Amino acid sequence: MELSRRITGILAEGSDGWDVFYRARAMVAAGEPVIELTIGEHDIRTDETILAAMGRAARGGATGYAIVPGIPALRRAVAERVEARTGVKTGPENVLITPGGQSALFATHLAVGDPGDRALIVDPYYATYPGTLRSLGLDPVSVKTDPENDFQPRRADIEAVAGGARSLLVNTPNNPTGSIYTRATLEGIAGAVQDHGLWLISDEVYDTQVWEGAHLSPRALPGMAERTLVIGSMSKSHAMTGSRCGWIVADAPVIEHLINLATNTTYGVPGYIQEASVFAFSEGAALEEKVAAPFRRRRDIARSVLAGQNTVRAVPSKGAMYVMLDIRATGLSGEEFANRLLDTHRIAVMPGESFGTCAAGHVRVAMTVDDDRFAAALKTLVAFAGTLA
Amino acid sequence: MELSRRITGILAEGSDGWDVFYRARAMVAAGEPVIELTIGEHDIRTDETILAAMGRAARGGATGYAIVPGIPALRRAVAERVEARTGVKTGPENVLITPGGQSALFATHLAVGDPGDRALIVDPYYATYPGTLRSLGLDPVSVKTDPENDFQPRRADIEAVAGGARSLLVNTPNNPTGSIYTRATLEGIAGAVQDHGLWLISDEVYDTQVWEGAHLSPRALPGMAERTLVIGSMSKSHAMTGSRCGWIVADAPVIEHLINLATNTTYGVPGYIQEASVFAFSEGAALEEKVAAPFRRRRDIARSVLAGQNTVRAVPSKGAMYVMLDIRATGLSGEEFANRLLDTHRIAVMPGESFGTCAAGHVRVAMTVDDDRFAAALKTLVAFAGTLA
Repeated sequence: MELSRRITGILAEGSDGWDVFYRARAMVAAGEPVIELTIGEHDIRTDETILAAMGRAARGGATGYAIVPGIPALRRAVAERVEARTGVKTGPENVLITPGGQSALFATHLAVGDPGDRALIVDPYYATYPGTLRSLGLDPVSVKTDPENDFQPRRADIEAVAGGARSLLVNTPNNPTGSIYTRATLEGIAGAVQDHGLWLISDEVYDTQVWEGAHLSPRALPGMAERTLVIGSMSKSHAMTGSRCGWIVADAPVIEHLINLATNTTYGVPGYIQEASVFAFSEGAALEEKVAAPFRRRRDIARSVLAGQNTVRAVPSKGAMYVMLDIRATGLSGEEFANRLLDTHRIAVMPGESFGTCAAGHVRVAMTVDDDRFAAALKTLVAFAGTLA
Repeated sequence: MELSRRITGILAEGSDGWDVFYRARAMVAAGEPVIELTIGEHDIRTDETILAAMGRAARGGATGYAIVPGIPALRRAVAERVEARTGVKTGPENVLITPGGQSALFATHLAVGDPGDRALIVDPYYATYPGTLRSLGLDPVSVKTDPENDFQPRRADIEAVAGGARSLLVNTPNNPTGSIYTRATLEGIAGAVQDHGLWLISDEVYDTQVWEGAHLSPRALPGMAERTLVIGSMSKSHAMTGSRCGWIVADAPVIEHLINLATNTTYGVPGYIQEASVFAFSEGAALEEKVAAPFRRRRDIARSVLAGQNTVRAVPSKGAMYVMLDIRATGLSGEEFANRLLDTHRIAVMPGESFGTCAAGHVRVAMTVDDDRFAAALKTLVAFAGTLA
């Protein structure tokens, strides 16, 4: 009995690159005191006011099938938010509510590519990107970046691999690098996708985590609204990771097809979670800033810990809940460094190699423990690097 | 900018066959008093004890990412339930928790078929089946049934179309027909899939709605455990349709691949919903019987309303929340009958033609309004049919 090639091919490399993460989890399970700076999970819970709204909605009767495209109030709230942030006219008909950002990544790629098609991603990339594409029978092709350009993709590097591709997936603010794409970078992206007839899939789930500069959505650039599918989520902005509530914003005819797809793949998102999301949006920027504040503080802590030494460099750390550290001065790969740091100091970080090839010699540090432990862990990491350099 | 062939091809027939449903919804929106007997939605809400458990779990901290395969307590609860019902040894490693039964249908078909492969379904079928397969690039092929055999598939009819297929999808207790597959039917299915090397996908989401005889899972038949993927859900058994919590039960190596897929397509199910589901199971059969009881009562009501006349016949109505009515004596198609019933009496039922070709001349009546309204609506339907015959 053989399974499909598309499911058996998800882990093309034979490993998902998360060995350090699994080792750390095993240590924790065995009772060892590991400081985990691996995944993008807030160290706070979903705000109790949001949970209260969810409870009210559930007890109020929102427990039956919610309408597949999303409840009108949430589609409207997302549309208003996106319009306010991009200046592009956006209505409920441009929005599909999805069970989380991951399923939005999957659905958008299903919508714009057929089996065997090439789909571009930017290296380094969020860990699931290649597997998501392979599960759809798509052929993931990397656009190279380098740390000297803050891991921002250059137009020429996109064009070098764009022939025959159907789509380009970008992510700003970026996981894993903490980079925020500049207007020049986004104009290069827009030029490349327009010249090559590509769809642009823009993963903007970190759009409330901006420490320097401003987030700019490529959907706002001239000629881009009709070819861009934006992915958003409640997860990072409202510490609602576990609630699995995200969305896709796109041209209305594209959304119509995505609604058909949703009917056949997920059949909607719990109504009480959607009502809780409407409530969360209604609390405005204050709640979002409250959720983002710890990462902003810790990013400042990281800057001060890293100041006055040259062994470990943060690149570029302008947004998102991570700092990407260049540890090439130690002579180790990111993988070796992460494994030795875990063994020696019980601190778990992600090797840059987990996210492709372009962040080799780096480690990604999630800023997801309390300020004091974060500062102490980072000091230990820097001192450890110093013993190697 | 062209979308993919797989998404634009979801509605191969150009219509999803739900015109009567949409017309009824539009009438309701316009303030007309329509009795809707169309979709499989309970007329009760999720039990408040389950909602209370959900609230406790959320406030207790289950708001972060839940582990992708499902929380251990729920995987264990599903495994124990399935083992008790099938006699087949089943552990947590045989279970993946999914965001609803629909996504389990999608994931299982992705797992066992590649683009262009033939996938068998039994006609009449649940409305999303063909679209789900087409969204995966699979070629849905119908196995014919007929009302004279209570819409149960015969081995010869499966074998007639099994050449080159990868899988067969069956559903017992059955939506839309209310049929429950006999042991002989299931043995025929088992023989056919074994002889043709097919995977069997067994949708058993109605397994607590059994009014006559007993539900038998094909996974329990000799040689079937390793080639059967069972789909279950909290939706129908616990009136938790909106909570989108389902599962797949299969061989452990198959589940391993499905976990990889889940990581890349959905990234888990809300932890507080999973904990609520664990609570719901812990309440045992009493809660499930409470949820099933209204349909059991109304099925008895239907039998008594239909007694003593021959124009409308229930076929076969042994399980699930529907009665399939043979209205061929009226000379109308199911579609004409449903449209005229809606126009004349403001009663909305689904034409058999919405579910394929084999239930032509039938209408499906969902038993989803209170007993008195249900009885009155059915009496009106029978009288209406009498004026036509």
